[in-house]
Amino acid sequence: MQTRTVVSEFLGTLLLVFFGVGSAVLGAEYIGTVGIALSFGFVLLALAYALGPISGCHLNPAVTLGMLTARRIDARTAVTYWIVQLVGGIAGAALLFLLAKQVPGLKTSGEFGSNGYGDRSDVHLNMGGAFLAEVMLTFLLVFVVLAVTHKVAVIGFDGLPIGIALAVIHLVGIPLTGTSVNPARSLGPALFAGGAALSQLWLFLVAPLVGGVIAALVHRLTHPVPAPQPQPVRS
Amino acid sequence: MQTRTVVSEFLGTLLLVFFGVGSAVLGAEYIGTVGIALSFGFVLLALAYALGPISGCHLNPAVTLGMLTARRIDARTAVTYWIVQLVGGIAGAALLFLLAKQVPGLKTSGEFGSNGYGDRSDVHLNMGGAFLAEVMLTFLLVFVVLAVTHKVAVIGFDGLPIGIALAVIHLVGIPLTGTSVNPARSLGPALFAGGAALSQLWLFLVAPLVGGVIAALVHRLTHPVPAPQPQPVRS
Amino acid sequence: MQTRTVVSEFLGTLLLVFFGVGSAVLGAEYIGTVGIALSFGFVLLALAYALGPISGCHLNPAVTLGMLTARRIDARTAVTYWIVQLVGGIAGAALLFLLAKQVPGLKTSGEFGSNGYGDRSDVHLNMGGAFLAEVMLTFLLVFVVLAVTHKVAVIGFDGLPIGIALAVIHLVGIPLTGTSVNPARSLGPALFAGGAALSQLWLFLVAPLVGGVIAALVHRLTHPVPAPQPQPVRS
Amino acid sequence: MQTRTVVSEFLGTLLLVFFGVGSAVLGAEYIGTVGIALSFGFVLLALAYALGPISGCHLNPAVTLGMLTARRIDARTAVTYWIVQLVGGIAGAALLFLLAKQVPGLKTSGEFGSNGYGDRSDVHLNMGGAFLAEVMLTFLLVFVVLAVTHKVAVIGFDGLPIGIALAVIHLVGIPLTGTSVNPARSLGPALFAGGAALSQLWLFLVAPLVGGVIAALVHRLTHPVPAPQPQPVRS
Repeated sequence: MQTRTVVSEFLGTLLLVFFGVGSAVLGAEYIGTVGIALSFGFVLLALAYALGPISGCHLNPAVTLGMLTARRIDARTAVTYWIVQLVGGIAGAALLFLLAKQVPGLKTSGEFGSNGYGDRSDVHLNMGGAFLAEVMLTFLLVFVVLAVTHKVAVIGFDGLPIGIALAVIHLVGIPLTGTSVNPARSLGPALFAGGAALSQLWLFLVAPLVGGVIAALVHRLTHPVPAPQPQPVRS
Repeated sequence: MQTRTVVSEFLGTLLLVFFGVGSAVLGAEYIGTVGIALSFGFVLLALAYALGPISGCHLNPAVTLGMLTARRIDARTAVTYWIVQLVGGIAGAALLFLLAKQVPGLKTSGEFGSNGYGDRSDVHLNMGGAFLAEVMLTFLLVFVVLAVTHKVAVIGFDGLPIGIALAVIHLVGIPLTGTSVNPARSLGPALFAGGAALSQLWLFLVAPLVGGVIAALVHRLTHPVPAPQPQPVRS
Repeated sequence: MQTRTVVSEFLGTLLLVFFGVGSAVLGAEYIGTVGIALSFGFVLLALAYALGPISGCHLNPAVTLGMLTARRIDARTAVTYWIVQLVGGIAGAALLFLLAKQVPGLKTSGEFGSNGYGDRSDVHLNMGGAFLAEVMLTFLLVFVVLAVTHKVAVIGFDGLPIGIALAVIHLVGIPLTGTSVNPARSLGPALFAGGAALSQLWLFLVAPLVGGVIAALVHRLTHPVPAPQPQPVRS
Repeated sequence: MQTRTVVSEFLGTLLLVFFGVGSAVLGAEYIGTVGIALSFGFVLLALAYALGPISGCHLNPAVTLGMLTARRIDARTAVTYWIVQLVGGIAGAALLFLLAKQVPGLKTSGEFGSNGYGDRSDVHLNMGGAFLAEVMLTFLLVFVVLAVTHKVAVIGFDGLPIGIALAVIHLVGIPLTGTSVNPARSLGPALFAGGAALSQLWLFLVAPLVGGVIAALVHRLTHPVPAPQPQPVRS
């Protein structure tokens, strides 16, 4: 795999976490849930146009697993992407932590933009509900990514529907779980938040991956795959 | 009709109801009317790019009726689409109901994102006004769909104006009726809400269809139709 | 001029006024200034894709005057467009009036989405300031329309920047004057509002036209015009 | 350099400051942080389509420095752009000052949309944090601009991701520093605000330029540059 593919996934995941989670950590009382949802969607939209031609701009292990299940990438590429995305997400959370420390009185432990269920959910959604929610939310994201990057899709339109899908996913999901749909978005902030954020982390690693696989399986029903052979990443 | 066309309309309507109505049921106090309007518009925008090349992404009996009136699809296709859309909408509402049950204290009967008039309208719009409103609101949606998928339209731009049209329709319509413009969006939630939601349901089945037919008739005046013959769905 | 060109400008201006002004009259307390701004921008964005290939989707005498000044249309076309736009705007306001009458307790006289200055401006902007504001706001709209429909522009992208420009124009202008930038948007509502809305109407007819002419003149400095001859409307 | 290139950068920066900063100065209490963020993003999006084919629509010394570092423009062009952008930003602030003076009771000194840190930051971010924030925020903007205008990018999609990137940058940055990411956006308002706005101005001139250079250097790692020779501006 070329260096620039790795740098693209690392940098993109770093920026997604820094701007998306950062909007929640630093500005929640100024921009509200709508503002946070737009932040996640808008930064992914911009990055999709910037990095899409380099690495496909997955920035998300669930998207990469969907791509693997749909046989668009091979297992070796998927594993590399996963590692790079998780490291990129931690780096983004670390930079955000460094910045948040410069804000007097800002509490960085406990929450720090991490995901949660039960009493760590705004609406106190229980664990089963959180799992179901994350599967459904991730389904939409991965299904849209697979469909609009499919060969029957209009060339050049990936970024808009993908970013906008992430925005609506957050509009629905923030009150429920804070919205993960992306293990790399959940891992980094949870490491810095600590405590219950870590003990609940497993759900936000597993449920998005389940949603991603289901999306790839359903996608086979809707989108014709003339020759389903592993294809190299666009690079 | 191919299986994937049917799956596309079923899945799309399910997701439209789950995310659009879900944003109102689960998050209204967090995202407000603007957030709900963006949710409906954004999920349709994303789905239009994902499913447009498969089934045309109607997801709405009023759109399908407009397409039939404009002779873009035949009656057999229209009937199949209608059934699939209504079933998909019920499935989306059922999934949403299942999720909402996991939120402690959330009331799922009575309202549950259903549409209404009179004392079930935020501004207490009367029945005649609600009918007029739904006709006008649906007119915009179906007119935009017909126009931007017309052969003189720029190829590949359907999703953006269609999704954005649905957003503005909700910005105007939510305080009035909760905004139907889509019988498949109204049926499912009303079945779970029960009571007055069911007795008022007829308006939200009929008025959007009237708006869709008017849109198709007016559309003939604005957009040239060189050879108005029934065309098969894109598939 | 073909019938469908006339119908396109009439219908488009009707819908622009019904949805844009309607969002303010019916939903201001639900969607706020941001929601109203998005309504105006989003409905124009959708209509630009739907009607752009038919009539150019001016829907605004100031845009038509800019097009005339830039020699893109001839005087005969401009006069026809102006009449049709003003009549369409009145028809949209009349439909909105009819709908608003079905909302118990909604006051339709006095304000009704009309523009204003002095004590009819949210921030009490004086008359000179209102004139300057409307000139600047209209300048952006007409300049963007002329530039993105210019032959050096990327084909097919008119709707997005034009609609988005109208949104930002309203984000800035609503607290100032309610934002006209369009005589056809101001005339209809003022006729129904009556009183001071009518005595202040002149400013919202004149200032946008001044802004439109200035935009066309400045546009000559930035965009090359190889052969500036009157061109027929796209139809 | 052609006159229209210079006019394009002057006019664009003037409009960016007038509409972006104007939304904060005139309408902050009506549109909130989300509305201001959308104003900055939306006006840049519209201008990118309008002026992109003329001057590249930098409107920002940090973008121009990134373009110079990436060897897309030569030093002579860069210097001309910088001067024109700074003058355009001052002109936009002057027009805004003139308009704000027509609003009774509006205080134009002290703040006037200028950037700040410490007690001039909403969250009291300290100086080091402000520097880090501006570097990160500018990095995203310049990286996206370089990437989506790169030759591997899809033609014609620059405006959307660039404008949307500026919106998310403001969603994150407004509570921190008011968001500069653009020396030309900071200089003009600071001149009219005076006092502490001027003594803190250095940070908002330097940090964005640092962010722009870093973006250009990182961009070399992700985007292939077959023949990195200075290219003339598109004109």
